[in-house]
Amino acid sequence: MWGGRFAEGPSAIMREINASIPFDKALWRQDIAASKAHVAMLGQQGIVTAEDAKTIAGGLDQVAAEYEANGVPENWDLEDIHMTTESRLAELIGATAGRLHTARSRNDQVATDFRLWVRDAMDQAEAGLVELQTALVTRAGEHSGSIMPGFTHLQTAQPVTLGHHLMAYYEMTARDRSRFADARARMNRCPLGAAALAGTGFPIDRNATASALGFDGPTNNSLDSVSDRDFALDYLMAAAQCSLHLSRLAEEFIIWASQPFGFVALPDSLSTGSSIMPQKKNPDAAELVRGHSGRIVGCLTALMITMKGLPLAYSKDMQDDKPPVFEAASLLALSIAAMTGMVAETKFRTERMRSAAELGYATATDLADWLVRQANIPFREAHHITGAAVKLAESRGVALDQLPLADLQAIDSRVTEAVYAALSVEASVAARASHGGTAPDEVRKRVAEARIALGLE
Amino acid sequence: MWGGRFAEGPSAIMREINASIPFDKALWRQDIAASKAHVAMLGQQGIVTAEDAKTIAGGLDQVAAEYEANGVPENWDLEDIHMTTESRLAELIGATAGRLHTARSRNDQVATDFRLWVRDAMDQAEAGLVELQTALVTRAGEHSGSIMPGFTHLQTAQPVTLGHHLMAYYEMTARDRSRFADARARMNRCPLGAAALAGTGFPIDRNATASALGFDGPTNNSLDSVSDRDFALDYLMAAAQCSLHLSRLAEEFIIWASQPFGFVALPDSLSTGSSIMPQKKNPDAAELVRGHSGRIVGCLTALMITMKGLPLAYSKDMQDDKPPVFEAASLLALSIAAMTGMVAETKFRTERMRSAAELGYATATDLADWLVRQANIPFREAHHITGAAVKLAESRGVALDQLPLADLQAIDSRVTEAVYAALSVEASVAARASHGGTAPDEVRKRVAEARIALGLE
Amino acid sequence: MWGGRFAEGPSAIMREINASIPFDKALWRQDIAASKAHVAMLGQQGIVTAEDAKTIAGGLDQVAAEYEANGVPENWDLEDIHMTTESRLAELIGATAGRLHTARSRNDQVATDFRLWVRDAMDQAEAGLVELQTALVTRAGEHSGSIMPGFTHLQTAQPVTLGHHLMAYYEMTARDRSRFADARARMNRCPLGAAALAGTGFPIDRNATASALGFDGPTNNSLDSVSDRDFALDYLMAAAQCSLHLSRLAEEFIIWASQPFGFVALPDSLSTGSSIMPQKKNPDAAELVRGHSGRIVGCLTALMITMKGLPLAYSKDMQDDKPPVFEAASLLALSIAAMTGMVAETKFRTERMRSAAELGYATATDLADWLVRQANIPFREAHHITGAAVKLAESRGVALDQLPLADLQAIDSRVTEAVYAALSVEASVAARASHGGTAPDEVRKRVAEARIALGLE
Amino acid sequence: MWGGRFAEGPSAIMREINASIPFDKALWRQDIAASKAHVAMLGQQGIVTAEDAKTIAGGLDQVAAEYEANGVPENWDLEDIHMTTESRLAELIGATAGRLHTARSRNDQVATDFRLWVRDAMDQAEAGLVELQTALVTRAGEHSGSIMPGFTHLQTAQPVTLGHHLMAYYEMTARDRSRFADARARMNRCPLGAAALAGTGFPIDRNATASALGFDGPTNNSLDSVSDRDFALDYLMAAAQCSLHLSRLAEEFIIWASQPFGFVALPDSLSTGSSIMPQKKNPDAAELVRGHSGRIVGCLTALMITMKGLPLAYSKDMQDDKPPVFEAASLLALSIAAMTGMVAETKFRTERMRSAAELGYATATDLADWLVRQANIPFREAHHITGAAVKLAESRGVALDQLPLADLQAIDSRVTEAVYAALSVEASVAARASHGGTAPDEVRKRVAEARIALGLE
Repeated sequence: MWGGRFAEGPSAIMREINASIPFDKALWRQDIAASKAHVAMLGQQGIVTAEDAKTIAGGLDQVAAEYEANGVPENWDLEDIHMTTESRLAELIGATAGRLHTARSRNDQVATDFRLWVRDAMDQAEAGLVELQTALVTRAGEHSGSIMPGFTHLQTAQPVTLGHHLMAYYEMTARDRSRFADARARMNRCPLGAAALAGTGFPIDRNATASALGFDGPTNNSLDSVSDRDFALDYLMAAAQCSLHLSRLAEEFIIWASQPFGFVALPDSLSTGSSIMPQKKNPDAAELVRGHSGRIVGCLTALMITMKGLPLAYSKDMQDDKPPVFEAASLLALSIAAMTGMVAETKFRTERMRSAAELGYATATDLADWLVRQANIPFREAHHITGAAVKLAESRGVALDQLPLADLQAIDSRVTEAVYAALSVEASVAARASHGGTAPDEVRKRVAEARIALGLE
Repeated sequence: MWGGRFAEGPSAIMREINASIPFDKALWRQDIAASKAHVAMLGQQGIVTAEDAKTIAGGLDQVAAEYEANGVPENWDLEDIHMTTESRLAELIGATAGRLHTARSRNDQVATDFRLWVRDAMDQAEAGLVELQTALVTRAGEHSGSIMPGFTHLQTAQPVTLGHHLMAYYEMTARDRSRFADARARMNRCPLGAAALAGTGFPIDRNATASALGFDGPTNNSLDSVSDRDFALDYLMAAAQCSLHLSRLAEEFIIWASQPFGFVALPDSLSTGSSIMPQKKNPDAAELVRGHSGRIVGCLTALMITMKGLPLAYSKDMQDDKPPVFEAASLLALSIAAMTGMVAETKFRTERMRSAAELGYATATDLADWLVRQANIPFREAHHITGAAVKLAESRGVALDQLPLADLQAIDSRVTEAVYAALSVEASVAARASHGGTAPDEVRKRVAEARIALGLE
Repeated sequence: MWGGRFAEGPSAIMREINASIPFDKALWRQDIAASKAHVAMLGQQGIVTAEDAKTIAGGLDQVAAEYEANGVPENWDLEDIHMTTESRLAELIGATAGRLHTARSRNDQVATDFRLWVRDAMDQAEAGLVELQTALVTRAGEHSGSIMPGFTHLQTAQPVTLGHHLMAYYEMTARDRSRFADARARMNRCPLGAAALAGTGFPIDRNATASALGFDGPTNNSLDSVSDRDFALDYLMAAAQCSLHLSRLAEEFIIWASQPFGFVALPDSLSTGSSIMPQKKNPDAAELVRGHSGRIVGCLTALMITMKGLPLAYSKDMQDDKPPVFEAASLLALSIAAMTGMVAETKFRTERMRSAAELGYATATDLADWLVRQANIPFREAHHITGAAVKLAESRGVALDQLPLADLQAIDSRVTEAVYAALSVEASVAARASHGGTAPDEVRKRVAEARIALGLE
Repeated sequence: MWGGRFAEGPSAIMREINASIPFDKALWRQDIAASKAHVAMLGQQGIVTAEDAKTIAGGLDQVAAEYEANGVPENWDLEDIHMTTESRLAELIGATAGRLHTARSRNDQVATDFRLWVRDAMDQAEAGLVELQTALVTRAGEHSGSIMPGFTHLQTAQPVTLGHHLMAYYEMTARDRSRFADARARMNRCPLGAAALAGTGFPIDRNATASALGFDGPTNNSLDSVSDRDFALDYLMAAAQCSLHLSRLAEEFIIWASQPFGFVALPDSLSTGSSIMPQKKNPDAAELVRGHSGRIVGCLTALMITMKGLPLAYSKDMQDDKPPVFEAASLLALSIAAMTGMVAETKFRTERMRSAAELGYATATDLADWLVRQANIPFREAHHITGAAVKLAESRGVALDQLPLADLQAIDSRVTEAVYAALSVEASVAARASHGGTAPDEVRKRVAEARIALGLE
């Protein structure tokens, strides 16, 4: 009567919607490690005999070896990685396998496994970001004095150096690393031993398992331990922010590679051609990084919605925690690596950048600042005088420093010959030597500090 | 120097981030169909010879047969399903294969393939929703007179019938069907022939390919044709709304199955047990449906973000259109099927529902309405009188209709013996016979109309 | 003990969190209209006397006049617009005011008011989009033959015309209009009379109120009527898609206005200057439109999350339906109007566009197509030959049509003098005359059709 | 020609879309403070004279006094809080006001102001969370031994104590506090002095202004300083997670307050009645808190999307950073306060909780654990034996401990009289004394630690 897909009967649907083994098999290493820590503790505490503990540990090693060699079998009837492993263990060592699940539940087991996985993902993000930062500071060091137009609103604003521009991303990724580090520290407590939701009556030693698995200690509340997915959200939030930073860098590479800009020649190895237009060299990697930020934010959104309004303790909705995290981790790793390659391998066309910096009256602010400094004019008034000079230059189609002194003086008599020294792009960047400013010497200081922080010196 | 993952060199990263074949192989049927329609048209228009067209069509059939038998090979170097197919075609029929790509580009090709896939997904959602509606109206028909507490704020409000409650979901899913139907009508134009972005100089017949692929006609602007993903967003939006409806029904089943409610006994076939608590029968399917709504909304969010701010025409970001749609379609199909099973197979414990309806002073509004009708008291005043009666009954721990007449008259002298007839839950539901109201006769009318609409009568 | 904000005691918090009058006062016109329709029906059905109905209607008119003159008073103790109006009505006409709330509840009242408001917002979006389309087709008509580079991946791909490019947005906004129209048709049923959740025992005429308020008829299920917010989500989804389209157009204007592109001079009236850089003319309006798409999508996300997992019928969470809709409607109206002004007033620098179209080997595909057509070479092979020609031209720093015939023939002997006619940008766009292609004549056809559809001819 | 809204001409639209003063006036305290710090430094460095610095500072004080007394005037032509203040300053002190903007830009000014505002919002969240935790540990202390059913999947799982349940939220809010603290530490660097994007040539002292405004030091890269909104996203992420936690607590209160549960009587002060159903007492505050989580997550989504793909440095899109943050901060403060009141004032109906704990075979796990401990049966086997006992008890409609010993022994002969001592709910909770378990003594330990951490002891 219910036709179609459902014709197979509810149980077929149930097997499919319920089985998490297609994705949670990714947790197998963590599941084996946590089970080994658990059974070692059970043995130590006399909850199982030393012999049983040893048998079980040996069996788990064998299961792990099989997974390593042949992959994890995907049998929907065994639902998840936990039952898949326990079932295989029972085949290998018999009824003793049934003692492994003493004083734990799948609820604390999966919370532990997933936490271990997420912790690894955080460590991988950190490692990838270090590589990206290494590329950034290397190229920034090469280009601490290469002049390009600095943009606001994508309009030429003031000259900056390419090194300075790249170092902005060093700062962003430094915050990304800090975010992953904070999240790691916050989540590094072990839920194992919370059992189903209430703790256990067995005399377990939660410090022992926590320590064996590299945690700083056990969690403090069993209900929270099995219903908490903050660690996954913290990971996704850090990943989302990082991907947004990368999307900005990607956008810049895409714009810079466009013919009217021509600021960069992207590496062939990170570009593709067209199936119809033979001349094309497309910035695919950058575009994919930019696109991936949408999917990573989508993963975060997904898990936030799934967690909304869930009563304690564990609810099956929480099985939907893993696919978004796995997807985001894979996309983030690729995105970081692709941008690392992009930064490291791109040929910067510095001559075109410099030419562009000379257009758009990028040193107008320098004229205004000169008036403030040399003629003690309030900035607002200096701003107005400069506006008039720009208007005149624009109407003549020339650069600011191509206006004759007489014309400048006609606008404001306090202008002198000395002003011309302030109007070159070199003078402009050299002047901005305030802390964090674009002056080449400032940039070199920042690069030097960053190299030390990265252990490159 | 860039270590780690990147140690393999940029090209390894590029191969991985760029390859869409791992997921777009799902489009193979659509890709073959669109290529066959294209080459048939090329032949008809004399752009390729009739013989070449025949050779290519035959080759495509053979490729399809191979895919059907052995799956689609996943070679990252061939990037996507289009190149995978064309490459195999060339192996099979030689250089003639190179004529297939005349007057098209991968940009219009993938737009066409994906549209066909999404159109199928819309049709599948429609079919699944018909099944769910069939289950809803069937159970609603059985329970048009079964009384349960109607809740607002999850507080007992007024008695309703279970049939009426189920028919609320019939209305929601009717809107869902309408949304998919609107989206299908809006997207049913064929982009094939837009080529890379600008159309083509070959004398193609776009009406012919559109018609062959079941479209209502060709799209009207080639730039839009290759840069538009509205059809995917329309699908995701309809899927998201549908999943939110299902999440509400799932929430109700979960609450109803909780021991303090005990309104339902869920089908064993859609429940699971616990690895540690032997007595558990958990509403896993409902929880997964509720959880999946988060992921489906996440898929929608992902694609909206990815499309934000993309300049025309095609950008590679748009390759990230498929994973969210594929994921959402799979989750939605399972969710609809699971809720269909849940509705069809759940045992409603009507006696517990009825008992609950008698608690919570659910007929207080009936007392107020009686006062308005029989004693011509303004509703606001009647509301206050009833409030006093409820307070008295509450203080005595009795139901409203257990208050003696004298006590009611002490509150307001206009109350008569006749009021008691209005205070039973049966009288309450029977009275609400306004269009769309909960009166059993009204519910039966709606069920009858729905059965006709579904073709069940 | 609870200190701080809470020091005022829970009731102060409750007043603040509970009061919706700060935002739902925006519904006052709809609330008055719905109350007048309701009381007219009550009078007609004899549920209140004709005299009472008249008194109440008169009182409502007076309240409306006061609101029109002085705004809606914001008294948190009256919670919302419904109680604010009823309370003022009671001050004006006395106890008779208490008869207005007969046979209705705030649950169906707010559902009706808000539906009316959203319906108006849909109509406003439609009107705004017609204006935007008018601007698009007007400018497209002016520039049906203006050549610019067509981009994919923001790389020069093939020449297109500016008119063709603008008409792509005509297509997008046509889908937007269709989406609003579909949503309007789907939501145009009146929930008034559903009362709290179960319908009413009073002999109301729901067709009468529905008709008086411009609905196609009453809703069919009272539970659904008060718990449904699909109409708000449908509005937000249409608004979100529309804003994403606008974000793409905004991105293009921003890039085109950047000095290295210089494709446009934005209207002064939609640009701003800088507080520090006197030369700046920033595309603020376009950037705000692009930014607003984030907030509009955020509004959609917000309401989807709020509705997730809500059991029937009304829950107070649903009070959070209005702020996102109000915010999105305001942002969307501004965004559409700003882009209309931008399209209408921007000066397109067609000479720079044309020059850019000649860079980047934009006619390479034309060479490949020529080889297919004239020399009957399979497209794949033609693609390879053209690739070699592009490589040669690139190495010499010349355009394709500046390569001597001998050099082209050295690459492939089948090339003849006739090829040069195909390699100009004019020839390229003129050739792409397939339906929906960029050929000026095609563009003019589309513009003509659009002008008729918009009633401009 | 462009009709409607746009009839007023582009500039009217521009004034409206461009003006941020309607919302950024909320920054006035921060703007005055930052300007005072800036001018003090300018004076100290001799960039303006000591006298001018004093005049400007005095003028700023006067502007602040006016704002405090009369609010900030909302003049769209002055665009934002910065120009509004500078304009008023000029009216008060004349042309000297024009010296204030020396060596800064609105780009670094707004970045500083907004950072200061967000830092305050973080501190307010921290203060609110301390109050909520105080309520939680107080009530947990009162109910360390009150038994209630612990749920998984909203199915009765094992008995827990109410104190333990409340302390789970203590843990969640502890992570929330830690998240705000991390975010605060990460963002506490001062962008003032980055100027428009490139730094400045004036000899400013960025350490001085940073220190005056309570920052740990200046930011390191001027481009990053004006284009970074991580601090706002970090705030929104912490707010979103916190609101999700609150949504879970709210959901529980709503379910617990529902008649079939009846676990709580909510405080009158945080409940409301119905306009139609006189008996209702609705958990509005909890529902609004649950609903608000949707809007807060929506705010986060909005800003993430807005920031996606923005090239450096400042873009006007970033003006859309404030409304989501302001909205989220207001909703979060209310939500925390409302839940604090709810936790502090709710009457827990412990007798009904305890009765519910005795239903649903909540001590079945205790039987299984007893078998493992006393009879050395592997857990899996004990689980199966217990399952049989539950089935028998269910078929008879009795509790587990009401099954005669003989019947239990018929299932497994190793059961003895001693088992009954393990099957009471008191024994069950007392047994779970593992670290973080639900045993009353464990709960008391956690409460005691928390009270010390909160400074309550």
